[in-house]
Amino acid sequence: MPKVKFTPQNKEINVEEGTNLLEAADQAGLYIEGDCAGRGTCGKCRVKITDDSKAEPTAAEKKHLSSKDLESGWALACQRTIDHNLVIEVPIQKDAHLRKTTLAGGVEDLTAEPLVEKVAVKLSRPAVKDQTADLERLLDHLENFELNIKLRELSSLPALLRDNSYSVTAAITGSRIISIEPGDTSDQVYGVAFDIGTTTIMGSLLDLKTATVLAVAAATNPQNAYGADVISRITHASESIGNLKQLQDKVIEAANKIIKDLLKQTRVARDRVYEVTAVGNTTMSHLFMGVDPTYLAPAPFVPAYSRALEVEASELGLKVSPAGRVTFLPNIAGYVGSDTVGVILAADMDQRKDNCAAIDIGTNGELVLAANERLMACSTAAGPAFEGAQIKHGMRAAAGAIEAVDYIDGEIKVSTIDDVPARGICGSGLIDAAAALLDAGLIEPSGRFVNPEENPEKIPSQFKDRLRSGNGGFEFVLVKAEDSETGDDIVLSQGDLRELQLAKGAIYAGLMILLKEAEIKIDDLDQILLAGAFGNYVRKESALTIGLLPQLPAEKIIAIGNAAGDGSRMALTSKTMRKRAIELPGRVEHLELSTRADFQDIFIDAMAFKGNRK
Amino acid sequence: MPKVKFTPQNKEINVEEGTNLLEAADQAGLYIEGDCAGRGTCGKCRVKITDDSKAEPTAAEKKHLSSKDLESGWALACQRTIDHNLVIEVPIQKDAHLRKTTLAGGVEDLTAEPLVEKVAVKLSRPAVKDQTADLERLLDHLENFELNIKLRELSSLPALLRDNSYSVTAAITGSRIISIEPGDTSDQVYGVAFDIGTTTIMGSLLDLKTATVLAVAAATNPQNAYGADVISRITHASESIGNLKQLQDKVIEAANKIIKDLLKQTRVARDRVYEVTAVGNTTMSHLFMGVDPTYLAPAPFVPAYSRALEVEASELGLKVSPAGRVTFLPNIAGYVGSDTVGVILAADMDQRKDNCAAIDIGTNGELVLAANERLMACSTAAGPAFEGAQIKHGMRAAAGAIEAVDYIDGEIKVSTIDDVPARGICGSGLIDAAAALLDAGLIEPSGRFVNPEENPEKIPSQFKDRLRSGNGGFEFVLVKAEDSETGDDIVLSQGDLRELQLAKGAIYAGLMILLKEAEIKIDDLDQILLAGAFGNYVRKESALTIGLLPQLPAEKIIAIGNAAGDGSRMALTSKTMRKRAIELPGRVEHLELSTRADFQDIFIDAMAFKGNRK
Repeated sequence: MPKVKFTPQNKEINVEEGTNLLEAADQAGLYIEGDCAGRGTCGKCRVKITDDSKAEPTAAEKKHLSSKDLESGWALACQRTIDHNLVIEVPIQKDAHLRKTTLAGGVEDLTAEPLVEKVAVKLSRPAVKDQTADLERLLDHLENFELNIKLRELSSLPALLRDNSYSVTAAITGSRIISIEPGDTSDQVYGVAFDIGTTTIMGSLLDLKTATVLAVAAATNPQNAYGADVISRITHASESIGNLKQLQDKVIEAANKIIKDLLKQTRVARDRVYEVTAVGNTTMSHLFMGVDPTYLAPAPFVPAYSRALEVEASELGLKVSPAGRVTFLPNIAGYVGSDTVGVILAADMDQRKDNCAAIDIGTNGELVLAANERLMACSTAAGPAFEGAQIKHGMRAAAGAIEAVDYIDGEIKVSTIDDVPARGICGSGLIDAAAALLDAGLIEPSGRFVNPEENPEKIPSQFKDRLRSGNGGFEFVLVKAEDSETGDDIVLSQGDLRELQLAKGAIYAGLMILLKEAEIKIDDLDQILLAGAFGNYVRKESALTIGLLPQLPAEKIIAIGNAAGDGSRMALTSKTMRKRAIELPGRVEHLELSTRADFQDIFIDAMAFKGNRK
Repeated sequence: MPKVKFTPQNKEINVEEGTNLLEAADQAGLYIEGDCAGRGTCGKCRVKITDDSKAEPTAAEKKHLSSKDLESGWALACQRTIDHNLVIEVPIQKDAHLRKTTLAGGVEDLTAEPLVEKVAVKLSRPAVKDQTADLERLLDHLENFELNIKLRELSSLPALLRDNSYSVTAAITGSRIISIEPGDTSDQVYGVAFDIGTTTIMGSLLDLKTATVLAVAAATNPQNAYGADVISRITHASESIGNLKQLQDKVIEAANKIIKDLLKQTRVARDRVYEVTAVGNTTMSHLFMGVDPTYLAPAPFVPAYSRALEVEASELGLKVSPAGRVTFLPNIAGYVGSDTVGVILAADMDQRKDNCAAIDIGTNGELVLAANERLMACSTAAGPAFEGAQIKHGMRAAAGAIEAVDYIDGEIKVSTIDDVPARGICGSGLIDAAAALLDAGLIEPSGRFVNPEENPEKIPSQFKDRLRSGNGGFEFVLVKAEDSETGDDIVLSQGDLRELQLAKGAIYAGLMILLKEAEIKIDDLDQILLAGAFGNYVRKESALTIGLLPQLPAEKIIAIGNAAGDGSRMALTSKTMRKRAIELPGRVEHLELSTRADFQDIFIDAMAFKGNRK
């Protein structure tokens, strides 16, 4: 079998002849960026191959790589199969960048009202006059509980009692004894709250006695290798039970990596983590639980389940206390998942009295409106443009991403994350770029670039060489090759503008439908909450400029950070919040937009860049 | 690695050099009879080795095998290690003989009051106007249940619904959906009741809709390879977690063999078996569940648990419906197990008003007394003599076992099971033999054989050549070599009489202590019930002759068959009986005999063969 060596990661792997290079990297545990699930359309899985017998580049490679790059060995991993030993250079991908995520999250105060009870007991020793069995001896001290115990725990109870002078601590969730521990461990009660994003998985370790966040960690969702969007993943999972299992294994593996990291940071023992909560979109929930998501994709978009699922950690292979309880919060609909439940909970939307909309823009866009004591939610097919997918030089919010673009003093200026040379453009940068070019008069209301050939007079001289003809229409050079990290120009293309128009139009139209159903007007809105990491970084002014948001005073628009993740933490630490979360879907009216003619009308209208100018 | 071939079973296996032959047979899946866990003391693991390079016989082999046998290749499997290729002839062991066990068991009428509910439903199809998730769509039809569902079932629910036009059947036990099946399967509801004996495992398959026994099957408990008695097994299990797991694996494997047999007999599908009940002594319960039994062996004989344990079939690896419920009925004490709970239930002892004792003689002896509205139970260290262990030519009740011995017309006559040449003597034969020799005046009240050298006048001439000097004192030849299957004389030895005295004395004394505690006399007993296969075959007259039972009119002594197994069936088919069984231990007073001086007194007295002659 040919051997492949990946540098600089220094990983070697033997693979079957004919194995795809992207798959080989996956087998070696490496993540190579890409959005198109290996179809050769995104051009992002660039690797450099050290190989004398150069293969002929494929059409996809010729499209995405310059002839100079091809000459020096660059290739697209998805386009190559392995038939002899190779050395592959993989550009280092920083893991999902946490930017300013703080330990505390967006919610100021978490309530400590633990769902795990720990009871330390000191039992009397058995004697011929008292032959009570070990379990019953223990349960006599826990008489307020009607308890089940797992065989795993019962199996070693006799030795545990005798090795510890009959002094042990029971950990109890619901009516189950999930752990019996030597001595008094009643001060050690921990939990992990997950936010399982399509792109990024975030986890926090909390002390459940105090509801304090002790550590946070994040990782790229390794299901990315099967496509950036949920539809690609559903398609993959629906092909075979093996594929479904594979996607489940990937996300569980990533969750375990995060847990390991959290435990390492805090020196908390794995066996002292008894509760795990998770939020995510409905597809992520199904894949995490290993449940067939096939019928989420075609209309009428039916999930396998809506309710919160509670399972034992060992059933999922999550590396916390084996009998610990894992709760994935409930889904509202096929495209409104428990991440939205988390947002509602974190923003207190089920209890507040004013009119308030929340927009969570991740890989999909979900909207919630609380108005007139009603709660309504919908999802929009915004697509993953705001996460950099489908955008020519799009990338996630990682070092080197253009995150802000300004039109100042007649100049277009860009800033990158970590102030390093630009590698691409992330979601907030994309919106900023469009807003700046609108301000500069380089984009027409229809979304087309001003044609520099037909209307040269409309192009200020300083942009003459930056607005140019590209592969698929005009494009604007944001960063020149000599200033970029990649050595290529970084551009905003006509195609990118089209993606942006589709995404912002869908979100705007979704919000309008919610207002219509609630019979209120834009001006009746007291607040628009922007949830998600994206909401933290998008400039309100730019969002208003491009018409992503309706025309409201900027102070009514509030970024609330990773509210979905906050909701997960709240449901982790508080019985009351858990109950509210579990019961929420019954209170939310879900609107299905895909078949509504009024939505299509508003959507088409909302794609244009008009009437939204500041 | 040397290769061992076993004939006539025709199994080959490669083993590590130095592997013990008994272990090698175990690895090959063969059961070689033996009682001493390979210590070389029982002499029962006879095999014939075809090997030119004959090894020197060990002391144990010289003790148990004649020089003629040694010459022709006979050896004890436990004494041999393998260092080169061998062919081994293993005498065929018939599996535990069921004798006259009937399908109906001892209980005439089982009540059909199933613990499994099956609900067939036809669901409406989802539509854009009704996007209800699959699980919630199903649960809307099962609204009287508060239900849990396993991921295993949920995972494939979407395809199941769509492949079957939304017509499915849910199987529910307690509050769990344990299975969702295509179409209407509501008429298929089955369960298996086990009686896990130290020596023999019996199982029955029942139709739970009608409480009918459809098939029975039995197998030798393969834990036998680790010793015939519970103490040997506890000792083995306590040595390491691996050993405990090994013993659990053995019994689960045997239970699965029985299930396979039951399903084959009836053509019932594995997935339609939803409930399993089991009874057994406390050690068997611990080993079946894989729970550490270590502290059952030393005083104060404390079990790890008493209550009934309910687990999922898949947790144990039992091959019925994976989420099916397995319930091991509760233990009363370390040496009074759920088999006794089964006996109490089957004999209605917790509800009857007369004075009644039940004696269950298996590998151990358990006694129950119902008197004056009290229920009392104790166990006696009767030892496995009645199952043929520790008896020189003892064997189980299988073809060729001497099962009856008569003293008629001055002659001692033997009958064997299946009327084939004798191979050994089983429990009922042992009691009969002792009773016959007592009647013939060949045994003294002390239990010693009449000494033919000192008192030749006491030996009738027809027995002069049959009562002779053996290895460990005198012995009586029951069957001569020329008439036996083994080609050896089959004898009753002085040692055998001693074992019998210990066993019968213990049981008699146990019963006396129960009567004493209840403050009643022997004559106050309305009935003595003999439970267990042994109770079916022992002759009441012989049991009275040797003083195993107190002097009562024979009509008060009633054999009730395998009452423990009947109890398991009753708890399988009826909610009411299940509840009664689970609550029974709380009603039973357990008497610990081992430390009572009054027990020792009565016991020593009861060992003699006196005052009990008919």
